[in-house]
Amino acid sequence: MITLTSDFGLRDPYVAEMKGVILSINPEAKLIDITHDVKQFDIRMGAFMLASAAPYFPKGTVHVAIIDPEVGTDRRAILIETERGFFVGPDNGVLMLAAQNQKIQQIREITNSQFMLPRVSNTFHGRDIFSPSAAYLEKGVSPSQFGAEIANPTWPNFAEIKYKKDVILGEVLHVDDFGNIITNIPEQEPRQKQIKGFSIVLRRKMLNLKFSKTYGNGKFKEAVAIIGSHGYLEIALNQGNAAEEFSVTAGDEISVSVVR
Amino acid sequence: MITLTSDFGLRDPYVAEMKGVILSINPEAKLIDITHDVKQFDIRMGAFMLASAAPYFPKGTVHVAIIDPEVGTDRRAILIETERGFFVGPDNGVLMLAAQNQKIQQIREITNSQFMLPRVSNTFHGRDIFSPSAAYLEKGVSPSQFGAEIANPTWPNFAEIKYKKDVILGEVLHVDDFGNIITNIPEQEPRQKQIKGFSIVLRRKMLNLKFSKTYGNGKFKEAVAIIGSHGYLEIALNQGNAAEEFSVTAGDEISVSVVR
Amino acid sequence: MITLTSDFGLRDPYVAEMKGVILSINPEAKLIDITHDVKQFDIRMGAFMLASAAPYFPKGTVHVAIIDPEVGTDRRAILIETERGFFVGPDNGVLMLAAQNQKIQQIREITNSQFMLPRVSNTFHGRDIFSPSAAYLEKGVSPSQFGAEIANPTWPNFAEIKYKKDVILGEVLHVDDFGNIITNIPEQEPRQKQIKGFSIVLRRKMLNLKFSKTYGNGKFKEAVAIIGSHGYLEIALNQGNAAEEFSVTAGDEISVSVVR
Repeated sequence: MITLTSDFGLRDPYVAEMKGVILSINPEAKLIDITHDVKQFDIRMGAFMLASAAPYFPKGTVHVAIIDPEVGTDRRAILIETERGFFVGPDNGVLMLAAQNQKIQQIREITNSQFMLPRVSNTFHGRDIFSPSAAYLEKGVSPSQFGAEIANPTWPNFAEIKYKKDVILGEVLHVDDFGNIITNIPEQEPRQKQIKGFSIVLRRKMLNLKFSKTYGNGKFKEAVAIIGSHGYLEIALNQGNAAEEFSVTAGDEISVSVVR
Repeated sequence: MITLTSDFGLRDPYVAEMKGVILSINPEAKLIDITHDVKQFDIRMGAFMLASAAPYFPKGTVHVAIIDPEVGTDRRAILIETERGFFVGPDNGVLMLAAQNQKIQQIREITNSQFMLPRVSNTFHGRDIFSPSAAYLEKGVSPSQFGAEIANPTWPNFAEIKYKKDVILGEVLHVDDFGNIITNIPEQEPRQKQIKGFSIVLRRKMLNLKFSKTYGNGKFKEAVAIIGSHGYLEIALNQGNAAEEFSVTAGDEISVSVVR
Repeated sequence: MITLTSDFGLRDPYVAEMKGVILSINPEAKLIDITHDVKQFDIRMGAFMLASAAPYFPKGTVHVAIIDPEVGTDRRAILIETERGFFVGPDNGVLMLAAQNQKIQQIREITNSQFMLPRVSNTFHGRDIFSPSAAYLEKGVSPSQFGAEIANPTWPNFAEIKYKKDVILGEVLHVDDFGNIITNIPEQEPRQKQIKGFSIVLRRKMLNLKFSKTYGNGKFKEAVAIIGSHGYLEIALNQGNAAEEFSVTAGDEISVSVVR
């Protein structure tokens, strides 16, 4: 099984070209799209998407992620083996969040041209390098055949949460298509026994929110704090768009005070 | 074979997570997307999409449809067996139109946690309940194992057509991406032998339309009445967008007088 | 393996209906989407998409392309056999560019109703004629069984490049989602040994561009001339949108003078 994540969109033929390359090498491969609508060149959003979906795939799955603004420069092509599977893509951080969650065993630079298309363009390594490498990997070629091991991969710059007395300082990781505001604050932090509510500051606006178990239990268009399906604190509007309501986008700061 | 219908869009990783869950349980499953661009929370549009596509799939297909504004509340999760296949989703009507066309044999509430993910979130039953249930069902688990039979499923509120002397009163079921206006008036009604044309009232505007066999036979941008591919009366513009031209959206009333 | 290209979009159930029809006839078929976001009725864009992706698919692949503004009129349905595979679609030029690149062996009109759905609508031959034909073809039915050979297929009107002394006159074939401006000038033309740069005229604006090997090597938002992944001259902006910057759309003229 091979998953594909990119910022190519589905209008252009680029994703299909990658699939054609994989299926020419490995006709039995099962191909699953994670998303191709990552914001262009947004490595961080790609990393979040891949890390969200990867845990749900079977052991041995090969994940390919191509958010690659530096294609054709000297940024490296890498392959990561984890305890649960494999990751293939550019060495710019897009693979690291998902790979790290599965315990990394080895990282190698892909340099063996035997596992690339005969002619490698400067503009589309997704098709010319990453797709054939993934196809051969899924076919059983050993990681060691692709190139030498490396020790210094590039990490994406995800904000870490900070504490300032009783206040948790985090940021907005992603705004999904429902307008749910997904933060980088894991559920262990705010979900403490005696909590009755949150006081959240978003774009200098203070919100006093109830902590809800579901999107749907609140009043119509009521804002709620919720632990979303990936285990992070989210701010949502019941049947409405929270990000629009509060003019929030990915990267915005958030500070949370817990009301006990 | 398992089909997927939702209002999740393809930008977020939600659809991929569902696919990963299904393939982890049932690696041989063949997954086909019907659409993930149902208008958010629009049960009726989801029901129409599923009912349009389901008849074309092979016997035994499992159809999963997740338009689920009440996820996490006490709305039930259900499984329907018909003469031709299976339907899995929330008990809010989204499955009923398609299931009814295939003759319903039994409806069961899904309560057996053995066929759910070990941890069920309050926000994403598509991934945590419906996908694993569909995967097990497709693997051959008997419907009776999922939970008890129920007799009172929720029905979607599709308008029924009415008659007022020679006038048929219906409504706009759906506007497709070509701008074709799809009504809920089945072809048996207006397609009578001696018909020369229709007089159609849409948003208080009277249109005298020719009845055409094809979109393409009229003049450029000419409006025509047509029996669309699903057997309903449509209003279309030859190489143009009828819904924009007449400012029509789903749910609008339509009244049709036949000119003999 | 069967690929699908259309202008149906992914919101409506039309693509899923085609897939259901194919899988009902041929449950083993592997289905790959090239794109369904061709601009509506834009035969030329469909032809470019198909021609871009088709070379990357395995020998024997059946390519179905439905950009079909004249569906239901007397335009023919055709099947093309090439040295590498098969093409199925309307006889309006959409198949020809891709088929021609693979050396055409025979072109037949599809007239045998045995390989169509029992009831053929006037509005959706993609589902009723082309999908079942492709499914049977992939199952091994001989092309000769579908209908008689024809000698006069319709060709799409792609501009050919012209020369005026040292100036190459071409046009913009496609603007991709990154805003890259893809021209119809093949790499053999401008990529000559002593070239230092190009002087390009786009919408009466003169650009003096460097010839770059990659999108990413220039300065931020710098415009570069590049040989794209399909072997055509492109104008791109490093991490920016060249088509927006220069207000260019598909079909625009381009003239190129080489600076030696």
